[in-house]
Amino acid sequence: MRKVAVVGAGMTRFGKYMDKTIKDLGREAVEAAMKDAGVDKSQIEAAMVGNAVAGLITGQEMIKAQVVLREMGFGDIPMVNTENACASSSTAFHLAWLYVASGMYDCVLALGVEKLYHEDKRRSFQAIGSAVDMTMVQELLKATAARGVSAGEKPAAGGGAGAGEKRSMFMDFYAAGAREHMKRYGSTAVQFAKVAVKSHKNASLNPYAQYRETYSVEDILNSPMVAEPLTRLMCSPIGDGAAALVLCSEEKARQLTTKPVWVTASILGTGKDRAPGEPGVTTRMAEKAYKLAGVSPQDVDVVELHDASSPAELMEYEELGLCKLGEGGRLIEEGITEITGKTPVNPSGGLLSKGHPIGATGCAQLTEVFWQLRGQCGDRQVKGGNAKIGLTQNAGGMMRGEPAACTIHILER
Amino acid sequence: MRKVAVVGAGMTRFGKYMDKTIKDLGREAVEAAMKDAGVDKSQIEAAMVGNAVAGLITGQEMIKAQVVLREMGFGDIPMVNTENACASSSTAFHLAWLYVASGMYDCVLALGVEKLYHEDKRRSFQAIGSAVDMTMVQELLKATAARGVSAGEKPAAGGGAGAGEKRSMFMDFYAAGAREHMKRYGSTAVQFAKVAVKSHKNASLNPYAQYRETYSVEDILNSPMVAEPLTRLMCSPIGDGAAALVLCSEEKARQLTTKPVWVTASILGTGKDRAPGEPGVTTRMAEKAYKLAGVSPQDVDVVELHDASSPAELMEYEELGLCKLGEGGRLIEEGITEITGKTPVNPSGGLLSKGHPIGATGCAQLTEVFWQLRGQCGDRQVKGGNAKIGLTQNAGGMMRGEPAACTIHILER
Repeated sequence: MRKVAVVGAGMTRFGKYMDKTIKDLGREAVEAAMKDAGVDKSQIEAAMVGNAVAGLITGQEMIKAQVVLREMGFGDIPMVNTENACASSSTAFHLAWLYVASGMYDCVLALGVEKLYHEDKRRSFQAIGSAVDMTMVQELLKATAARGVSAGEKPAAGGGAGAGEKRSMFMDFYAAGAREHMKRYGSTAVQFAKVAVKSHKNASLNPYAQYRETYSVEDILNSPMVAEPLTRLMCSPIGDGAAALVLCSEEKARQLTTKPVWVTASILGTGKDRAPGEPGVTTRMAEKAYKLAGVSPQDVDVVELHDASSPAELMEYEELGLCKLGEGGRLIEEGITEITGKTPVNPSGGLLSKGHPIGATGCAQLTEVFWQLRGQCGDRQVKGGNAKIGLTQNAGGMMRGEPAACTIHILER
Repeated sequence: MRKVAVVGAGMTRFGKYMDKTIKDLGREAVEAAMKDAGVDKSQIEAAMVGNAVAGLITGQEMIKAQVVLREMGFGDIPMVNTENACASSSTAFHLAWLYVASGMYDCVLALGVEKLYHEDKRRSFQAIGSAVDMTMVQELLKATAARGVSAGEKPAAGGGAGAGEKRSMFMDFYAAGAREHMKRYGSTAVQFAKVAVKSHKNASLNPYAQYRETYSVEDILNSPMVAEPLTRLMCSPIGDGAAALVLCSEEKARQLTTKPVWVTASILGTGKDRAPGEPGVTTRMAEKAYKLAGVSPQDVDVVELHDASSPAELMEYEELGLCKLGEGGRLIEEGITEITGKTPVNPSGGLLSKGHPIGATGCAQLTEVFWQLRGQCGDRQVKGGNAKIGLTQNAGGMMRGEPAACTIHILER
């Protein structure tokens, strides 16, 4: 397998774009990525495009890649539509990496694009809801209806299942996980709130973020309860957006830039029924990635992880080996994952505040880490521009308590 | 890039399965393919799964691969959901090939699975309808409504757009293409009918075919008109089904079988806006495939091609180089593409009669060619079991007169 570099990335600001189509959003991200890479359309040899729910939101169930890219004049290059729920576009990136690593192509585009907003918000949540085995959803819908749960006004999607009008059922999974973590390890709602404070603060420094307001711990805790202990401001919102990256062979990258960022691990895995005590899919895939890249968690300078809820971020610190099991709370208390800390996590603002247009999220995480390693993140830049190793973790869907899909990417300059 | 072999394939009979889920259909095909390959689940290292419209038909918009395969116990192997309309599962096969060819994995599963039947047939056609740019569909819907076209009772889908209750708007594209061919080259409705006679006869010999009745030229011509000159029996039906293949590295294949079938070309391309006189995407991709495999059209012993309508088959003879432009009619008149002919085409019965559950079709074509090259097709076996080179052509979606996606695969034993 050949070395593969990222040479450019671009994205839209995440947000609510009722008047824009996936074609508009995708085009903006792709043009920005090509400009950043210094390539034109004639150099792109293939395109992998991740999207999860455009069929249900926009009616474009099929050939989304072609609809988004066709008019941009890429000619008859291979285009593949990939889907792995919230990990749809990191899956697209993985396949773009594979095309280049295999030796088949020298310059490949990866794009994630999503519209979640719909005039009828129930439709947004119902769309997100199909990221689980639908037979499971039917049971959960019944259980939720029986409890009569409702939530605040800010729509809290979080890559989750859609039941009620104003929230996502996936938050029930996250809330249950958070309660279990509190019970077992003594983590607290205040710690979960501190994660959210950090995310919103980081997003306030990120012009691509959907929500740029800052909040105090009290603000977070006092926002409407979604599912104990998750408040609204601990949950990722719904949103629209796109992100794209250009991947190249080493030779091509050397022609294009003096600042290539290498993909030293591209791992995709699937959730399974675990044996008792067996670690989760994030841990299992992260271990493969560290081994492949020849780095340890302590070597990582910047992380973008899948904080569909703020307790999830704290647990993922542990799952990624940034600390021992049960120590996630300590990391946030000690400021280790702040932009100024030893291992900055989600300097972009993460899913929580930068936003989570689900099929765009994976490529957006990779874009942020790429920009961080290039030292071009302005006010939210980590390590004074000297970060060398970055990691992304992106999870999608849910089957019996474990994400259906999980990707880990390690990028190095 | 390494040599890649197919070592096993399996499929369900295509048909109408109101009581079966995509999980049921997928499992049946995968178990059959693994049995055929002589591998168990522990040997499968990744799975690529093509599906087009389960979101609209069953509500399972996301993580279809995981839903179908999870309970079969494959563990945490990479799974990717791919979509390219009617070419969804040949795209999955292409990516499975890429995984093996790259050296990343030694044994990968490709699966195509689809349910098109829905209690409300309009929903089936509407689902199929999203295989075009939806802005285009809106215009076509208006045009069709203005003409008030209706069709016969057998639902004619043909990988096309859904407008009316009983037919697919894609047939308007095919009908227009057929009329143009008649005008330019003198092909006739009788020739189109002869293609359909052949398909239905072949399907009558195929236990996996959805429609196994045989018809005369008169039967075909006298069946209800769908869109001049297409009658109902010249159009592929809607259906449910699944097909799967196991792909291996050379070393692994040698361990498993004495009869590997090699993938000597795996080409995926996208439709584009053509220059005047420029050949279509099928021709362009076929030329790449022939060059890569080092064979000519005349070397090919068996073809499975995308006969969403019978005139399309005749035109694809030409596009694939089996004859010169305008000579498609001669090929069917002279029996050259019969099972007993020099270049048998669609011995399975093709989309027209074997059926066309769109996301399953690509893998089903590859399964048929694999079985033909292994000499295990019984009554429909071509070349007395001595076929050495086979080709599949699978097209998906439509954008401004050209398929959105097109794959060409060449298999050799």
